[in-house]
Amino acid sequence: MDLDVTAPTRALAAAAADLVRLLPGRLLDPVLAGMVLTATPQGLELAGTDRERGIRLSRRARTHAEGRILVPARPLAETLRNLDSVEVRLVVEGAKLALRTRNARFALPLLDLAAHPGVRAAPPRAGALDAALLPAVAVVAAATSRDDALPVFTGVHVKQRGERLVLAGTDRFRMAVATLPWRPGTDDLDVLVPSGLLTEVAKQASGDEVMLRADADRVGLSWADAEVSTTLLDAPFPDESRHLLPEVDCAVEVRADEVAGAVRRVSPYAGAHGAVVLDVGDAEVRVRAADPQFGDAQEAVKATVTGDRFSPAFQPRYLADALQAFAGRTVRMGLRSGLRRSTVISDVDAPEADLRYVLMPKRI
Amino acid sequence: MDLDVTAPTRALAAAAADLVRLLPGRLLDPVLAGMVLTATPQGLELAGTDRERGIRLSRRARTHAEGRILVPARPLAETLRNLDSVEVRLVVEGAKLALRTRNARFALPLLDLAAHPGVRAAPPRAGALDAALLPAVAVVAAATSRDDALPVFTGVHVKQRGERLVLAGTDRFRMAVATLPWRPGTDDLDVLVPSGLLTEVAKQASGDEVMLRADADRVGLSWADAEVSTTLLDAPFPDESRHLLPEVDCAVEVRADEVAGAVRRVSPYAGAHGAVVLDVGDAEVRVRAADPQFGDAQEAVKATVTGDRFSPAFQPRYLADALQAFAGRTVRMGLRSGLRRSTVISDVDAPEADLRYVLMPKRI
Repeated sequence: MDLDVTAPTRALAAAAADLVRLLPGRLLDPVLAGMVLTATPQGLELAGTDRERGIRLSRRARTHAEGRILVPARPLAETLRNLDSVEVRLVVEGAKLALRTRNARFALPLLDLAAHPGVRAAPPRAGALDAALLPAVAVVAAATSRDDALPVFTGVHVKQRGERLVLAGTDRFRMAVATLPWRPGTDDLDVLVPSGLLTEVAKQASGDEVMLRADADRVGLSWADAEVSTTLLDAPFPDESRHLLPEVDCAVEVRADEVAGAVRRVSPYAGAHGAVVLDVGDAEVRVRAADPQFGDAQEAVKATVTGDRFSPAFQPRYLADALQAFAGRTVRMGLRSGLRRSTVISDVDAPEADLRYVLMPKRI
Repeated sequence: MDLDVTAPTRALAAAAADLVRLLPGRLLDPVLAGMVLTATPQGLELAGTDRERGIRLSRRARTHAEGRILVPARPLAETLRNLDSVEVRLVVEGAKLALRTRNARFALPLLDLAAHPGVRAAPPRAGALDAALLPAVAVVAAATSRDDALPVFTGVHVKQRGERLVLAGTDRFRMAVATLPWRPGTDDLDVLVPSGLLTEVAKQASGDEVMLRADADRVGLSWADAEVSTTLLDAPFPDESRHLLPEVDCAVEVRADEVAGAVRRVSPYAGAHGAVVLDVGDAEVRVRAADPQFGDAQEAVKATVTGDRFSPAFQPRYLADALQAFAGRTVRMGLRSGLRRSTVISDVDAPEADLRYVLMPKRI
């Protein structure tokens, strides 16, 4: 209980902010609003849990006295964020944790560490991914639903296929599938991971490599100085492969940013619940929308077109999200007729992270 | 009705955005949600009104056909904002205004110009201010209230005093008074100007000089390519001079940014309805706050102190606003005892724009 450390302010503030972001905003149990600080000869560990998620972040610090305490997480993070001194000393003084700089002192009440459930360690490692592939993971996570009523659509299906890791996420109206190279450490991984965790990890992870960790109940990710884990989602995941069939009736190659720009300019004319239509022509795609009240708009984008002509309609936000995932790239849009009407967007080059985005056209 | 012009997109988009910002968000009368566009050989005028405010912005354009039309203001502004072409052509086509670029066309419905009340011209000029003084005007406007129930506190009192213009704004708990050099064109100006208008003008005005305009009913401001006017507030304004008496019981000279930083770091410890206290010492001011739940904090800031010692308390947001008005400057805080307990903050140097900020200390 005599914890006493000196740490670089900025790195510590960033870690405290990351921890707060990784924990849900509103916790019924006030003890879970606490952050466990552990000072060891190696440095300072910041840890927190909401009983499902467990987060442990290690940071460099000079330890004057070892110890473990529980302090209010958000006030600590906010105080650290506002400091402009290079270093800060964290020292237990009576029933408070004092944060001291040259000319200031901030004191937060200690919480009852004995009442805290503890922060679970992450499960054993299942394989490793290059951190450079995390943007593709974020795209897949963003294609899932925020609606907890249907848990299966709030998760990313992570499945091992030999030397590849396939991640798929859908909210029923669109689906993103990424096929990534990885270094397996197990021979059978098939889990449904809460997408919120992947979104945060994709933002926060540092270093070259991210470790994936799993056992029968939990899944985790770890990198240089952090580990995060949570309970697995327990739901059967629909088979995504039928949407990824190679046969299409029309293939359109376009610059993703040009179509995205046209969608951004045209979609205000689609009305609140409207659609943008892509008229596929001989050497262009015409993006158009109309609303009796608002007016009408159209913009032509150069394209290379092979196959039949179509005029699929899309919900503007979904089309914009999909194109955003390929920012700066040339994409191939595969359009289909009949029952399998889904449109598959993919990179025309073959990048290491093979990302495919499936959109269900809107009936108009 | 045959309006046809070609204009630089970016400048036109900025003007349309300014016009939309100067008009209230929700208008009961849909015809007021329209923007009057007038093409003349000199260029394009954008105008709008909510019956109180009148705004006219002139912009460069090549006029192919003169004309005047009414179009939905927000949709036009949003369409222009999204365009990335260098120029845009605005041309009436039947019952629509078409916006044309090389590869796109956006068409908005024309509204009934005959139903529009017209945009009133600004009143005659009363004097001119250097545009460099507008930040001080914005500070005074920001000290007023947003609560329409007491109109007098939503206005800035603008009063001529010879070669000086005195602007005062208060919400009852604080007051800002700016004394500015100006070039009078009239010999008696004493009006209450809605502060929202001054805030927007301070953001938007370009050029070297801003003209103040007034008659018995209206007040206006104009600059290079714009004029804005509105109905005067009709309310007696309290006398602000008694708060600005030169006698103080304690004078504290501090760097405004250092105190502002301390207030930012300490005020989270003041609780939701709390106060920060400034303990005036011999060569420092100690900024402190405490909350039984949250903890306590204090930070010392170097100061030059003359006179008695005080420990006034302030509402953190008001103190932060006041110090923000003097960012980068050294300020003098004049503290008083007894009935005139107000604290007056002013610049220790004598800048051209003499700004004084009066704060009522909080009783604790």
